[in-house]
Order: sequence, then structure tokens, then C-alpha cells
Amino acid sequence: MFRKLLSLEEARKILKESFSPKPISAERVSLSEAHDRVLAKDIVAPIDVPPFDRSTVDGYAVKAVDTFGADEDRPVALKFCGQVNVGEPPSVVVENGMTAEIATGAPLPKGADAVVMVEYSIRRGDTIFIHRPVSKGENVMEAGSDIHKGETILRRGQRLASREKGVLAALGLKEVDVYKRPKVAVISTGAEVVEPGKPLPPGKVYDINAHTLSAAVLECGGEPINLGIIPDERDQLEAAVKKALNLADAVITSGGVSVGPKDIIPQVLDTLGKPGVIISGISVKPGKPTTIAVINGKPVFSLPGHPTSSLLMFHMIVRPVICKMAGRREEVSPMVKAVAATKMFPARGRRTFVMVNLTYDKTGKLLASPVPAGLSGAITTLAKAMGFVEIEEKKQFVNEGEEVTVYLF
Amino acid sequence: MFRKLLSLEEARKILKESFSPKPISAERVSLSEAHDRVLAKDIVAPIDVPPFDRSTVDGYAVKAVDTFGADEDRPVALKFCGQVNVGEPPSVVVENGMTAEIATGAPLPKGADAVVMVEYSIRRGDTIFIHRPVSKGENVMEAGSDIHKGETILRRGQRLASREKGVLAALGLKEVDVYKRPKVAVISTGAEVVEPGKPLPPGKVYDINAHTLSAAVLECGGEPINLGIIPDERDQLEAAVKKALNLADAVITSGGVSVGPKDIIPQVLDTLGKPGVIISGISVKPGKPTTIAVINGKPVFSLPGHPTSSLLMFHMIVRPVICKMAGRREEVSPMVKAVAATKMFPARGRRTFVMVNLTYDKTGKLLASPVPAGLSGAITTLAKAMGFVEIEEKKQFVNEGEEVTVYLF
Repeated sequence: MFRKLLSLEEARKILKESFSPKPISAERVSLSEAHDRVLAKDIVAPIDVPPFDRSTVDGYAVKAVDTFGADEDRPVALKFCGQVNVGEPPSVVVENGMTAEIATGAPLPKGADAVVMVEYSIRRGDTIFIHRPVSKGENVMEAGSDIHKGETILRRGQRLASREKGVLAALGLKEVDVYKRPKVAVISTGAEVVEPGKPLPPGKVYDINAHTLSAAVLECGGEPINLGIIPDERDQLEAAVKKALNLADAVITSGGVSVGPKDIIPQVLDTLGKPGVIISGISVKPGKPTTIAVINGKPVFSLPGHPTSSLLMFHMIVRPVICKMAGRREEVSPMVKAVAATKMFPARGRRTFVMVNLTYDKTGKLLASPVPAGLSGAITTLAKAMGFVEIEEKKQFVNEGEEVTVYLF
Repeated sequence: MFRKLLSLEEARKILKESFSPKPISAERVSLSEAHDRVLAKDIVAPIDVPPFDRSTVDGYAVKAVDTFGADEDRPVALKFCGQVNVGEPPSVVVENGMTAEIATGAPLPKGADAVVMVEYSIRRGDTIFIHRPVSKGENVMEAGSDIHKGETILRRGQRLASREKGVLAALGLKEVDVYKRPKVAVISTGAEVVEPGKPLPPGKVYDINAHTLSAAVLECGGEPINLGIIPDERDQLEAAVKKALNLADAVITSGGVSVGPKDIIPQVLDTLGKPGVIISGISVKPGKPTTIAVINGKPVFSLPGHPTSSLLMFHMIVRPVICKMAGRREEVSPMVKAVAATKMFPARGRRTFVMVNLTYDKTGKLLASPVPAGLSGAITTLAKAMGFVEIEEKKQFVNEGEEVTVYLF
């Protein structure tokens, strides 16, 4: 089973052809549970917002024509016909020559078509003197002027944060249909890894990837299912991947895909269902051993064991898939332009990602400096990096002072 | 009780003098529960990472001096003395003239100080021919080279995402001390507001603020406690604020702080404890009626009833306080430079915030266009805005084409 090492673009194309990520299904949740979830249906306004013509000031509801020509010296006199309170349907009708006291937010009574601010009126018993004319609609927020009944106001795929939740509340919706979070099983492999919290026998290291990858799944809207550490034994790995495929919508493994004879993950993935392994290695650094399978319609991403490599490959390959399965519109990594602080070299013939820190120099230029200790085994390389610079396969090097694009974590 | 309208800076200064936001207390949670929480203590590494000298390649562990002078034509011959597997303590010692087979990630056996990559070796029975010299430490990741035992590797106040969780896992920590989320009670007031999901009687509108403000509290690391809608009655408001002060670390009310005679919130806040109301109105637009009290060491923010005004004032005044109570380092709103698409006018003598949308014009310039329908009662104004432009009190207007700073939501 030998396959040529693919470029990152080729790998992405093959993945796209073999697996088309779609949201799983929808569920109805309350507005408070809907935080940061993704709308599964367009929202068509069931009511007008505001639901009625509303006064935007404290003052007097009038027929605008009655106020024409009013000024400080010759105020118009109108007859008081009642009061309209906030939260109550008006009990008065404003006829010609009449006016009703009205509070901010109260519904405009029948007959009235504008509101005079209280500052421009004087009351003497049942007579209200108006000093300033208003035009029709002045100081009134018309029914439906904010949101029209029947209008599509939020779209499927929209993430719900404070402002979108405000729109849903304004429409009186206490529940909303959102996409289910895709379940993503996370498996760590390797004879050397031990779960944090347990004693560390000689020759062993703590498992990092289960925790970084689970957190990364959460960050793109998925629900991680941590299946723990599985030894590099064919039967146990096979059982674990089968279980993962039963429980979850996608599977991520880490470790066990370098070039050693013990790397049985590709063999396991090729026997569990069709089409099996579709990508065996990608021409990138770090991340070269990355192996991807599709098994009975579910993607399995086998990432390298090195924490930096696996999290970087998650970012480059897995993240867009999980985001789409979560119903999120495809998300582009935020990026900034910066200037290379030093020369950076790519690995020969491979797309290379250099972890960098960002600092401003004295002249205000944003500098991208490679994070020291470039060993991909180092977890701190990643923790200290603010992002990475991508160097094309064919480029010989990035020169000091050259402009680079930094993709931010 | 009359107080002069304060500038935004004066209001912030008074608030800072009256209430110093601090994290509530800490709690210990598991690594998986710690996602997006804030570290309450510095993390001092309890072990070296890696915990032992580790081979970074598959190959042969050697004494570097034994390989000096080796080349293709004159390989050095070393005697095979055993094998070192991943995850196991080495059972061999590498003496002069000897070598042990070693896998990537396996611990370097005693006596060895470098690893020759398998590509540069040929094995004939128990003799290994080395074609290339290695220097001391080559292909070895030294114990503690990633993280030193005793090193302070993460700091109090750090938010925990995938990369930080990776560091904690690498150290074998399965639990971590994080700050408790500050509890923030949210109260809506007003005779006209109705909870979403209930029928809407004539003259009423659905409550928006409880939902937008609760979501905003979540977004800055707090835990909202929604106390529902309280009528504008003194006894009920007083009972509700008392309850809120008992349950929560901070209180937010919305509505009931304009200039009408029914505005009893300031009166209530002045009777419940010292110092009471410290800020009665701020010279901003929108958001002018904003009232702030401190009662027995807890802040109470009384925001205007208009959804846009209340959420904007949350952003300007409340958010930094909740963030600090959540233990987060003070967070600055992300901002971008853009060009005003039209003239923008401030309200006379008040700091003015204009909601804007951002688009690129044909020449690639980023344009800030005010969102239409500027009524602060409109929820869609806010939902459609990507951010806001701040116009200084003393500025007459922002000209079309002038550079502006847009604070992003």
C-alpha cells in the first residue's frame, strides 16, 4: 500500500471529493441554551417590531396638521383628552383639536400621527399650548419599522451571540432550532503515553494530544468524546476505532502514523469500511505522516503524535471540516501582515509552517519572529507562538525584512 | 438628588474609585472543565518536559565521539548491544564502541549522548556501520528542554484554550485552579415588557435586554442569573435588587432610568446600602441615563431600556468590570482603522457612538457606514452593526473620507 505524498492542496481536494461535511441534524433549544450555537433555519419574523406605533419621547400625541404654524409667540391650543401609559392599550382617540399625554414607549392612540415633546408644550388645566409644529410621524417609531412581519431577519448558519439573541427575543421567540454539535471521538495512541494525573513510569510521557485536540474540537463547535489512550496493538486499535465510529460523527487519532513498522493505524483504517484510507502522508512540515480515511461516510483523521504537528494539522485540515459539520459558515483563520524578523527556511520540497511570535519594533513595524526550539515535539513551541507563517514548497527562503502573512491561532 | 452629567472618563474614574473589581475566589476543576476558564494561580512545572532525554528519530544511540570521522567510504563499525523501545526504560548501557537500536520518542540509554538516523547506518548481524558522524546531543531532545522542572510556565490570569491545556497535560496535571465565574444578576424593568414565549397583549413589547445582557455577561466570563421582569413599583424593585445583591456579585438592571417621574430605580439604589448611587447619567449618546451604584461592596449598573443603548453601555462600562471580576486581564476591544463613508454628527456636547457597518470600496479602502435607522430603540441597528465609531464631545463632525477608529463588537 504505497501512495505518493500529496501537496496540501491535493490532500484537501481529495478529502473534499471523498467527504462532504454537512451539519448533522437540528434540535430545538431555549434562548439561554442557544448561546454560541448555529441557526439551523432562517428566522422569518412572526410579528412586527415594534408591534405598534410607539412614541419615542414623553409629550403629547397630536394630529400633526393641528400643530402647523405653531411658534413661541402664537402657540396652538389643544384640548386635553386623556393619557396614554406605557404598556397599556390607549383608551382615548385623538380627534381634531385634541391631544393626549403620552409617555416614551407608549402606543400612539388612534387619530394621532405625531408626538410633540413635552419641552415644547405648556399645560393650563385641560388646555395644552403647543409651541412648535411637528410633521406627520415625528417622534413616532412606526410598527414594523425595526423588523417587518414576514421579513427573513436571521439566516441559517448564523452563530448566535448577544445581538442575534436580542433579535430573537424581540420577536418573542423563546426557543430556536440550532444544529446539533457534531460528536468527534478523540483517541490517543502510543506505548509511551500516560493519562495526566497518573504516576509517570520511567520512559513514559503524559498524553497531551487528547487534551489539545478535544479543546480544539470544542473551539470549532464540536463535542469531543475522549476515548483515552489505546496501546499500539492491532486488535485494541481496531476495537477503539469501531467504537469511535459508532459513537461519533468523526474520529481523530494521534500518534502511530510515522514510518515505523509498528504503525498499524493505516492498516486498521483500510479494513473497517469503504473507501478506507484516502490520504497517506502530506508534503508539509510539520505534519507529514497525516493519514486520512473515510469509513462508511465518516471521516477519520490520523494526526502525528507530536503535539505541535497534530494541532497544526488539526488547524489546516480538520478544523474546516468540523466547522462545517457544526453548521458554521466556513471560517477563515484571522491573519495579519508582518515582516520577517529573521531569514526562515522551508523544509526541502515541503510546504513549511514556521511558528512565530509577533512584536512591534521601535518604528511600529509588526515583526514575525520564529519561536525558538523548533522541535515539533515541544509543546511550548506552540504555546508560545501567536501564529504561523506558511512557506511555499518552491520558495528557497523567506528573507529578513520580507513581508509575510501570519495566520493567527 | 441632583448630580451633574459626567463625561465618560469622569464616570469611569468615579467607578474605579468606588469599586475595585477583583476575582471572587478560586475553584479546582478538571482539565476538560477548564476550557476557557482563567488560571487563578501561576503554574510551576512539577516535572521536566520531556521527563528524560528522548530520541527524536529512529536510529542508533551512540557515544558521539565514536562516530567522529565516519563517512560513506569509511564507515565506523559499532557493536550492537540491544534495543530501546518507546515507553520502556532502557535495559542496556552503551559502552565505548557500542550502539543500541532506538525508536523515535524512546529514552536515550545510559552511556549514549547522541542518535544516528537509521538512514545513515547499515546493519550486518551484530555490527552496525555508521556513515555519518553526529555531535553530542544530536537527534536528542534533552530532559527539561521543553519545560524545566520549577519553571513558572503559565501565569495567573491566563485564559485556558487548547494550547494552554496542552501545557497542563504535558505536566501531568489533571486538575487546575481557576477563578470562579462572577455571578451577575440581570433584571428587566418596565410596565411594557413581556417575556418571550408569552402572548403579547396590546401596548406591550417583548423583553430584549435580559437576553442580550445575559449573553454579554457570558461572553466576558460571568455567569448570568436572569431574575426576569420586575414592574416599575418601588416595593417590587427594592425586593428584586435586594434578592439580586444576595445572589450575585454584581447586578445589572435595564429600563426605568430615563427622566420620567416613574424612575424609581435611583431612589431604590440610594436606600439599600452605602455609598449608593455614584453616577447619575453620563454625557454620552446613546446611554445618557446610565446610573451606577455601589451597595455594600457590590456594583449595580442601571442601564437604559433601549436595547442598543443598554448593550453599548454594557460594552463601555460594565464589560471591563465583569472581565476583571472573572480574572481576565483587562481586555481591549479589537479595533480597525477605516474611512468615514459619510459625514457623521455628534449629539451636541455629548460623546457620541455611531453604529457602523464595514465594507471595502473598489480601491480596497475600508469604509465605515452608519447603520440606517438610528433610533436607539431599534434592535436591528445593533444586529446589523459590526462596530461603532466614537465621536469626541468637542468635535463638530466627522467628515466624509476622514479616518476613524472602529471598535468592533
